[in-house]
Amino acid sequence: MVARRYAWRMSFARRSGPQPLRMSTLFVRTLREDPADAEVASHRLLVRAGYIRRAAPGIYSWLPLGLRVLAKVEAVVREEMVAAGAQEVHFPALLPREPYEATGRWTEYGPNLFRLQDRKEGDYLLAPTHEEMFTLLVKDLYSSYKDLPVTLFQVQTKYRDEARPRAGLIRGREFVMKDAYSFDVDDAGLEASYQAQRAAYQRIFDRLGLEYVIVAATSGAMGGSRSEEFLSPTAIGEDTFVRSPGGYAANVEAVVTPVPDALPFDDAPAAHVEDTPDTPTIASLVEVANAQHPRPDRAWTAADTLKNVVLALTHPDGTREVVVVGVPGDREVDLKRVAAAFEPADVEAAGDADFARHPELVKGYIGPRALGPNARGEGVEPGADGDTAVRYLLDPRVVAGTRWITGADAPGRHVFDLVAGRDFAADGTVEAAEVRAGDPAPDGSGPLELARGIEIGHIFALGTKYAEALGLSVLDVNGKATTVTMGSYGIGVTRALAALAEANHDDAGLAWPAHVAPAHVHLVATGKDAEVFEAAARIADELAEQGVEVLYDDRPKVSPGVKFKDAELLGVPLVVVVGRGLADGVVEVRPRVGGESEQVPVADVVGHVVERVSTSLEQLG
Amino acid sequence: MVARRYAWRMSFARRSGPQPLRMSTLFVRTLREDPADAEVASHRLLVRAGYIRRAAPGIYSWLPLGLRVLAKVEAVVREEMVAAGAQEVHFPALLPREPYEATGRWTEYGPNLFRLQDRKEGDYLLAPTHEEMFTLLVKDLYSSYKDLPVTLFQVQTKYRDEARPRAGLIRGREFVMKDAYSFDVDDAGLEASYQAQRAAYQRIFDRLGLEYVIVAATSGAMGGSRSEEFLSPTAIGEDTFVRSPGGYAANVEAVVTPVPDALPFDDAPAAHVEDTPDTPTIASLVEVANAQHPRPDRAWTAADTLKNVVLALTHPDGTREVVVVGVPGDREVDLKRVAAAFEPADVEAAGDADFARHPELVKGYIGPRALGPNARGEGVEPGADGDTAVRYLLDPRVVAGTRWITGADAPGRHVFDLVAGRDFAADGTVEAAEVRAGDPAPDGSGPLELARGIEIGHIFALGTKYAEALGLSVLDVNGKATTVTMGSYGIGVTRALAALAEANHDDAGLAWPAHVAPAHVHLVATGKDAEVFEAAARIADELAEQGVEVLYDDRPKVSPGVKFKDAELLGVPLVVVVGRGLADGVVEVRPRVGGESEQVPVADVVGHVVERVSTSLEQLG
Repeated sequence: MVARRYAWRMSFARRSGPQPLRMSTLFVRTLREDPADAEVASHRLLVRAGYIRRAAPGIYSWLPLGLRVLAKVEAVVREEMVAAGAQEVHFPALLPREPYEATGRWTEYGPNLFRLQDRKEGDYLLAPTHEEMFTLLVKDLYSSYKDLPVTLFQVQTKYRDEARPRAGLIRGREFVMKDAYSFDVDDAGLEASYQAQRAAYQRIFDRLGLEYVIVAATSGAMGGSRSEEFLSPTAIGEDTFVRSPGGYAANVEAVVTPVPDALPFDDAPAAHVEDTPDTPTIASLVEVANAQHPRPDRAWTAADTLKNVVLALTHPDGTREVVVVGVPGDREVDLKRVAAAFEPADVEAAGDADFARHPELVKGYIGPRALGPNARGEGVEPGADGDTAVRYLLDPRVVAGTRWITGADAPGRHVFDLVAGRDFAADGTVEAAEVRAGDPAPDGSGPLELARGIEIGHIFALGTKYAEALGLSVLDVNGKATTVTMGSYGIGVTRALAALAEANHDDAGLAWPAHVAPAHVHLVATGKDAEVFEAAARIADELAEQGVEVLYDDRPKVSPGVKFKDAELLGVPLVVVVGRGLADGVVEVRPRVGGESEQVPVADVVGHVVERVSTSLEQLG
Repeated sequence: MVARRYAWRMSFARRSGPQPLRMSTLFVRTLREDPADAEVASHRLLVRAGYIRRAAPGIYSWLPLGLRVLAKVEAVVREEMVAAGAQEVHFPALLPREPYEATGRWTEYGPNLFRLQDRKEGDYLLAPTHEEMFTLLVKDLYSSYKDLPVTLFQVQTKYRDEARPRAGLIRGREFVMKDAYSFDVDDAGLEASYQAQRAAYQRIFDRLGLEYVIVAATSGAMGGSRSEEFLSPTAIGEDTFVRSPGGYAANVEAVVTPVPDALPFDDAPAAHVEDTPDTPTIASLVEVANAQHPRPDRAWTAADTLKNVVLALTHPDGTREVVVVGVPGDREVDLKRVAAAFEPADVEAAGDADFARHPELVKGYIGPRALGPNARGEGVEPGADGDTAVRYLLDPRVVAGTRWITGADAPGRHVFDLVAGRDFAADGTVEAAEVRAGDPAPDGSGPLELARGIEIGHIFALGTKYAEALGLSVLDVNGKATTVTMGSYGIGVTRALAALAEANHDDAGLAWPAHVAPAHVHLVATGKDAEVFEAAARIADELAEQGVEVLYDDRPKVSPGVKFKDAELLGVPLVVVVGRGLADGVVEVRPRVGGESEQVPVADVVGHVVERVSTSLEQLG
């Protein structure tokens, strides 16, 4: 039996197995110059090393070496999805409008969605994610609680018409994503499915050799109750996140400000309005306050002022709403945090037309009295007919008893000693202010540290949003219809590849981890000696026979210097050089990074290399 | 070494290898009823067996079992491409307009192309094929004859906005295609590359167990000098092709009519015009001719008449041209053949407006005298200024000396004994008439046989069309720029899967060849006996350990009848039943089609099945 056991697998391997890739015929050209549009190392080096080429903004073609790396990343993702019990399916990229209309995402995605019409003027889109289709497919096939739980996934090309595609594969418009979706009858089931995916993500990034941080995140257009991001830490990352000494980690959009205790205000002086001419900015206000209205104990600073920032929201139904956000004057409003806070509305700074509609907002001198409950007529509910007051939301630090200098709703006038909870109120709080290194952590463990990362994965406990919109319910154990609860789990596969390149390179080029390298060994033959090339070809073939993937630089008229430069640029982890040493019966073996060069007797080199390759692959599991 | 040799491969297999698929949790539901929109067996059965689901017209989602089959078909295609020396790359599906504008295909593809705009109103398309991008990539990387030849391929999702998507996967709007492109410096190189791909296609379809016929074809929108199609013969195929006893085979669009010898016409009587009232059709003309103008030796038949059919061409530049095609009255004009003959123009029957522009065309009574050279002024060249005559093209059978009854350009009048080459001429010949079974074969080997098939592959010797349009040249051995010559080679991967289903099914369901089946073995446990399920689970695990892919029907409350029906519908080639026989120590093993059921001792069943699976896989190579 043993002889027969893997018989057809071996015949498969014989037919298609790893022949050495020969540089003389491989479809690749390396570039010595950085591409003009490349801002980050992964972009620069993947193009220079001949892994990818730009086809249009944010849209890339994959050359043979790039495709090999991509296939290996995809394989790890697939294996761990299957190991976690997820089943692979595959949906179209071109989809009809209707399901996305039903969930509101046809509109919510705005200009980020590629939309088109077919020859019959039917509306279609190129899918950015596939929640709707998965929901409808489960609805099509399943009807009972006995069918659940189920987790499905696909590896599929996704489309997003990014306003600013950038950084090569990191923010593209056509990219490969693994998206998985779980379906459960109850919250406990969803939690188990969510944790199974979370654990699978950890195994995936561990196996890829990709460092990551799991941070609390906001759910954005996806909706749902809770989400976490997997970030690969790097200075060029687009996402800023915080970490506390105690292990709290969150995307900056999701950071929850610890609320200070309320302060007593019985002894506080009454509020008083003062002339503060020409003080439309916080800096000018602080200067004038210290010059003309100094306090005895210490100087006024920006932290003593309350800045009221006017924003304009565009809601999904198209209506425009002006809101005012009050933050301590020493902090900027972080538009990303504001955007997350007001999802699904779009947020921008209010414009002239917005101010014209609200003459009570005196630009540069806006105070709480013109806003929210302070301005609302007695007994008028927020948002009711007759409510002409704009919504007013405060930073969580503006607790009862805090005392502020803020606008007095008249040009050149500010109010001093205005006490929150005594002199003014708001419609609620909002996480609008910037997060700063050193801010107290929500877990109380100390100051927050700020860092940047690339979002390589995002997992969402969606809940019932999609199931409700699309009518996905099953009969429960009592025969009663119950809405299914869902999770959604994405890995940016092409982006993870870019993150790997970011994390594994030096000035000379790429330096792939063994599991994802386009080959295990880069074999270089140097010089012009026919015996060298014969020996190298023999080693290449013998390694290939042992299952080692060899990239063999057999180019006859290329100098050793160019070959070594290319080997550094391409980034295969182990370099074997057959050259002058052959006369003395030795071959050089050296790792691409961080290790000693060894002279190995030519008779031992195949065994030596197989051993090293096996070891490095097994280390990654 | 041997112990180490495949160490990491085995660890790979352990982690991700073929666990049994369990029907109790597999994401699949079989349907007893045919879907309403399914016209053909492959569509009907792939939906019923839970392999695919319709997402939109001509756009399908793939369920786990379908995806397994698709992955196996893709793997065979990939392996043979690599074995033939082609290198895999991957292009975007979403592409900018410019390259397709440069080759004219942005316009030529007409409504078949999905077009869209991005947020900056840039024009994009969903690629129907990728000639342009491959050409540009080779231009980007290569510059010397030394770099060539090279053949590149991809397996990619393609888009065509078909007017009438039909037959499930056979004519879809989003589908998977393997497209390869060869680049050579000269015709001999192109011929070698073409033959290498042709041979690879033969191996692919042989390994898939898919019968095929290679037929001469026309090149259509692709352009180029020569092409062949691979057709899978089936009565439900959309393509009609011919075969001769001598081995000639051609798509019906490409059939070349053997030209008969010219006939002597010295003794022919002079042409004479006769009254033939109310004879606008061939049938009415033949009747009146026999009644009022009989000839002595035999009756007139439709074959004695020359039918002049008015067509309107729309050229790629938008201009409209009326042409007249003359064919023997006993043959219809085949619009597909006409369309191929006039590529890249679009062809339709002339309308009232066309006739209004050409009052010399007397509907129902059109004769050669009003057409082409017969109507053109002396010394006027066809198409020149002053040429008001419509182009006139004749069926190749209308050779000099043939004698015809045809229109006399006046209502109710026909001319008799009009002799080709004596009384009229034409601007050329056209392959417009239908091909019929029994027609003489071009190779002279006897009558043609007609059959239908599904186009599963198409190979084109493109020549320099794309390289010229996009400026792809290399320096030749003398340092002179020479235009590269190309081939283009496509396999409809999803369509090939449908063709496999068409060729391998019966009334009860699918019956996959071993290489592409979603599993090697369908193991069914019947009854309620716990021992039966335990034994079946053990067999499933042991088979899986031996590398056999097992689909295990472990559903506890499903009747044996339903399980057997599902096994027939799903179409795994080998069925193993663990049931009542277990008490007597035997298990039933039976092929899905065409073979005896065997009772195998339970202790031997794993070895027995491994042997059978190995044998069936090895037979296909």
